[in-house]
Amino acid sequence: MTILPFLWTEILIPVAALIGIGFALIQWYIVSCISVSPARASESGGDDYLLEDGPDGADAMIKCAEIQKAISVAFTTVAFILGVVTSVLSGYLGMKIATYANAHTTLEARKDGLLVLYIAINLFKIYYKTEREGLFEAITGYGLGGSSVALFGRVGGGIYTKAADVGADLVGKVERNIPEDDPRNPAVIADNVGDNVGDIAGMGSDLFGSFAESSCAALVVASISSFGTSHDFTAMCFPLLISSMGIVVCLITTLFATDFYEIKEVNQIEPALKRQLIISTALMTLGILLVCLLTLPSSFTIYNLGSTPKVVKWWHLFFCVAVGLWAGLIIGYTTEYFTSNAYSPVQDVADSCRTGAATNIIFGLALGYKSVIIPIFAIAVAIYVSFALAVFYGIAVAALGMLSTIATGLAIDAYGPISDNAGGIAEMAGMSHHIRERTDALDAAGNTTAAIGKGFAIGSAALVSLALFGAYVSRASLTSVDVLSAKVFIGLIVGAMLPYWFSAMTMKSVGKAALSMVEEVRRQFNTIPGLMEGINNPDYATCVKISTDASIKEMIPPGALVMVTPLVVGILFGVETLAGLLAGALVSGVQIAISASNTGGAWDNAKKYIEAGASEHARSLGPKGSDAHKAAVIGDTVGDPLKDTSGPSLNILIKLMAVESLVFAPFFAAHGGLLFKIG
Amino acid sequence: MTILPFLWTEILIPVAALIGIGFALIQWYIVSCISVSPARASESGGDDYLLEDGPDGADAMIKCAEIQKAISVAFTTVAFILGVVTSVLSGYLGMKIATYANAHTTLEARKDGLLVLYIAINLFKIYYKTEREGLFEAITGYGLGGSSVALFGRVGGGIYTKAADVGADLVGKVERNIPEDDPRNPAVIADNVGDNVGDIAGMGSDLFGSFAESSCAALVVASISSFGTSHDFTAMCFPLLISSMGIVVCLITTLFATDFYEIKEVNQIEPALKRQLIISTALMTLGILLVCLLTLPSSFTIYNLGSTPKVVKWWHLFFCVAVGLWAGLIIGYTTEYFTSNAYSPVQDVADSCRTGAATNIIFGLALGYKSVIIPIFAIAVAIYVSFALAVFYGIAVAALGMLSTIATGLAIDAYGPISDNAGGIAEMAGMSHHIRERTDALDAAGNTTAAIGKGFAIGSAALVSLALFGAYVSRASLTSVDVLSAKVFIGLIVGAMLPYWFSAMTMKSVGKAALSMVEEVRRQFNTIPGLMEGINNPDYATCVKISTDASIKEMIPPGALVMVTPLVVGILFGVETLAGLLAGALVSGVQIAISASNTGGAWDNAKKYIEAGASEHARSLGPKGSDAHKAAVIGDTVGDPLKDTSGPSLNILIKLMAVESLVFAPFFAAHGGLLFKIG
Repeated sequence: MTILPFLWTEILIPVAALIGIGFALIQWYIVSCISVSPARASESGGDDYLLEDGPDGADAMIKCAEIQKAISVAFTTVAFILGVVTSVLSGYLGMKIATYANAHTTLEARKDGLLVLYIAINLFKIYYKTEREGLFEAITGYGLGGSSVALFGRVGGGIYTKAADVGADLVGKVERNIPEDDPRNPAVIADNVGDNVGDIAGMGSDLFGSFAESSCAALVVASISSFGTSHDFTAMCFPLLISSMGIVVCLITTLFATDFYEIKEVNQIEPALKRQLIISTALMTLGILLVCLLTLPSSFTIYNLGSTPKVVKWWHLFFCVAVGLWAGLIIGYTTEYFTSNAYSPVQDVADSCRTGAATNIIFGLALGYKSVIIPIFAIAVAIYVSFALAVFYGIAVAALGMLSTIATGLAIDAYGPISDNAGGIAEMAGMSHHIRERTDALDAAGNTTAAIGKGFAIGSAALVSLALFGAYVSRASLTSVDVLSAKVFIGLIVGAMLPYWFSAMTMKSVGKAALSMVEEVRRQFNTIPGLMEGINNPDYATCVKISTDASIKEMIPPGALVMVTPLVVGILFGVETLAGLLAGALVSGVQIAISASNTGGAWDNAKKYIEAGASEHARSLGPKGSDAHKAAVIGDTVGDPLKDTSGPSLNILIKLMAVESLVFAPFFAAHGGLLFKIG
Repeated sequence: MTILPFLWTEILIPVAALIGIGFALIQWYIVSCISVSPARASESGGDDYLLEDGPDGADAMIKCAEIQKAISVAFTTVAFILGVVTSVLSGYLGMKIATYANAHTTLEARKDGLLVLYIAINLFKIYYKTEREGLFEAITGYGLGGSSVALFGRVGGGIYTKAADVGADLVGKVERNIPEDDPRNPAVIADNVGDNVGDIAGMGSDLFGSFAESSCAALVVASISSFGTSHDFTAMCFPLLISSMGIVVCLITTLFATDFYEIKEVNQIEPALKRQLIISTALMTLGILLVCLLTLPSSFTIYNLGSTPKVVKWWHLFFCVAVGLWAGLIIGYTTEYFTSNAYSPVQDVADSCRTGAATNIIFGLALGYKSVIIPIFAIAVAIYVSFALAVFYGIAVAALGMLSTIATGLAIDAYGPISDNAGGIAEMAGMSHHIRERTDALDAAGNTTAAIGKGFAIGSAALVSLALFGAYVSRASLTSVDVLSAKVFIGLIVGAMLPYWFSAMTMKSVGKAALSMVEEVRRQFNTIPGLMEGINNPDYATCVKISTDASIKEMIPPGALVMVTPLVVGILFGVETLAGLLAGALVSGVQIAISASNTGGAWDNAKKYIEAGASEHARSLGPKGSDAHKAAVIGDTVGDPLKDTSGPSLNILIKLMAVESLVFAPFFAAHGGLLFKIG
């Protein structure tokens, strides 16, 4: 039936996963060997020319090493506490590696997942031949696990990082007039820790969740199609083979960045990261073709929700995966256009700072709204093509296609917080102005790349949720989800409201946590003598504790909203209303997530644009401290919770509700809808 | 069959309409007689104690009269130009009356509509018996007409008013440090004109559109139910009878405000307006019962989309109308809670100004998101109950129920801009500080009541659109709108994106127009000698022209988006995708509209809360000019386009797309979906 024999599949998937993990561990080892110590300054001064060309003396280096240790210690504690709720595998490793500032190795998170899923499937294969329900439970349980991890990583991490960031800025920059990341600011360590907790761990667990869920959706749909009924294990493993190919492609792509091209200038970084994205997409297209050609039967049958059978050819699936992959690239590039200060949208926002913070906010919000248009069309096309070719199985593999370049995407995303931290450490260690300028430029590129990463996360979340929705509908034995039914429509409109409810909670949480942070920072400035003069050190630990406590406490209500809603709706209103709810939350949440993340990214870069003063126009708005710059800082602060807390958390909202509904679908179908049964 | 004979129906509807118009004209006459002239100050000094107890001398009065004339002249010109596109009947009369500051008489707009619709139906009755299509065309054409008017009233008016408002504030308050509404500010007349153009004309035409469309939807559904086939004209006129009863109830309610209670204190105004809302809702509930009892047959049959027949009892329809009515009241009160500075949400937002504009914006956005929850549940319940009882006919009459207290709602809404203008005139005429304080308190109450009016407009727009959606589906001969079909789903997700696209356009338009206004105002301050000293008058006319030109030019792209989208989608993608698009735009647009309008209202009142300093807490944030107050002003300015341009315009987006699709449904069903036909 298929070109690639069964045995090869059994070998290839775990080998790809192990290669990935091995590569990540080697990278981690190399990076962790480069310890930042005073001795190092003399040993290898000229090598890493991006950061260390200025001879700042041993003093700065000692301080730098101290700070790294402070972040690392605070960091391990936080990682442990969060780890309890978020699972160690994806988040913790990602964070640990990021502290050592090597982005490539965040590949890690996914490979773990692939291996775990592979082992799980093999373990449950025993049940599979006799009992289909057993496999369902196992796979959906895995998906739910992955998603719950992501919920707390994203929401908790998001609250953690932005409480510290906003709190530090409000007292430090605004009240005390000390620079960003000044070591005298008690919240500065919490801020740096937060960059890792929120951005790296959050994103890692989010994308890991997407990966787990889309594989899970594809497997559930596959198992009820002919793949499943004819027990063709190689074809069943097609989703995992796509992911394996993704790992190989991303490793090859890494070589382009590290070995084929050499980056000499700071302004080459953003184009280089973008080039990585194109290279990996182009290579992956070939990779998909190879996988489809070798592992798929020439044609097979998929059942559309148990009704009409659909004959799918192998190259149909190629187009399904490819359309997802390329839709991802389009989303990535659109995001770049709207958030990079090299283009007119961000420059317009920066220009609007001329008339104050209010016009900055108005233009920024409008930019975010506008940036939704193209990604939604890209997603719509991907949905239409993949659905037309292979129904919900097509959508699931389209999602995997979009996620297949995830490793490159994660590297690009992690670039942002790592550069941000580098800048922070440079500032705290009192390194020269020259170095701070460089890290600022790195950071601006990082904001754009982080937004690109978020674009990928949102786009794939939309496809994944839709695939899960299809699996849910099929498990709930629904044959249609008719908007003309009142049951479905009220689900739809309430579902579309949920992202607003959720965002209100997370934004308010950040606001509240930031206010307690402000009070603590003020208290320290007022009570610790010699703090402003730099004689005494601030109490970093208390600020870290505030962020940690806030993130753990405040993630409960939004988490509960996401976890409880499907249960309540399923039990009281039944499977039709729940289907409407999922669809409503999906179509509404995607929009808010994209616009929030791009608005925030644009404000951040508008501020950086003014600060950098790289053009005539930018200089007319600056310098730092001008009225226009002050207006830009306000926009940046507003954008923080939008882009790093409420926006990205919405991915989890739509995915987790879908996977949870999928798990409980048979139960709801049998026992749900109590309210309508009474009436 | 029905208790009330046919003849009575024929008489009652036009009589109710004529009584309403007559009452409005009398009120207008009375108010226009009170001309503000120097002579008046001595004639009747003590009577209108709210405004004229301070003996400000003849000077202030002369100035006041001059200003009134300036607004009125500018105003007539604008009304004329806008009138060409917006139709004279609803917008112009509403504005004209509002200039004379009497809110009750905005009843006007609807009565016209009722009479016109009644006449149209009677004219088309001739065709009705032989040719059903003729009636359809006539009714849907009327609805489309009403909606197009509303589009330009809302969007154009919204851009007009906020360009002037934001522009005036940015130069006057921020740069020149002169008070709001200072007569030296060249944009101040444009600002006052804008309050009428945007808020009164916009709201009038919006609600008029809702009324026209829900009647139209009810009539279309009725004509394909047994109402139509058995030619029971009285029952066919049920929607119009509900509206007639609404007019009578609102007139009676007016008596409570003007004759039964006397308002002695400024702080009694807000409770009084709220009481009006309860009184009219309670009376209307009785009124609906009466109408249902007298005019409906004891039971009749409604066909659900031409398939399953549904037997509806007369009291079923009573509950349909009543559930809409009471859902409106719940929406109104929720809005009040979230936008009035008497409650904690706005006070929290005001408190967040302590840490600057950024936290103010974050808290304000979170408040808006949160304020969506209860209204959406209220709308969902109204939809479920009315649909369960009488399918789409039930939803159409529920919308009419919500709109039946529209006259009271409009009075409450118009209260806001009128108070705002009164304050402006007082400031410009150089009246005493004491009077300005009073008009500020009036204005704060006005912000809340305006938000309540917007809540009604949005809620009714949701119900109306759903009813139109039902009529569209039935005319397009669709038997289901299945989310599981890719055609429908891509419509759904793109539809949910449209409100963002539309909002991006309108917000950017306001931003751009405000920037040109800023330049003109700056130019005048720099080039007109003696302007700051009050020796020479500014050139008000140029600023009025800028707002007028901007509103006419900038309303074209968003207008085109709304008008063209259904045509393109219907022709290229067909009726299923269009159905998905309408549903998506509806469920997504409602949320943005509610949150935008409440966020804006809350920011405005948070500012007023600090300015008024009525509590210990408020005084700790103030006074005017404090850092917290400056932060609050920024929030207020951001909120302006949200609450008065992009938010309310979304009502029109969802309604107009639905009614346009309804008009073209048969065409799309026969010839649409070209793209899928090729593929």
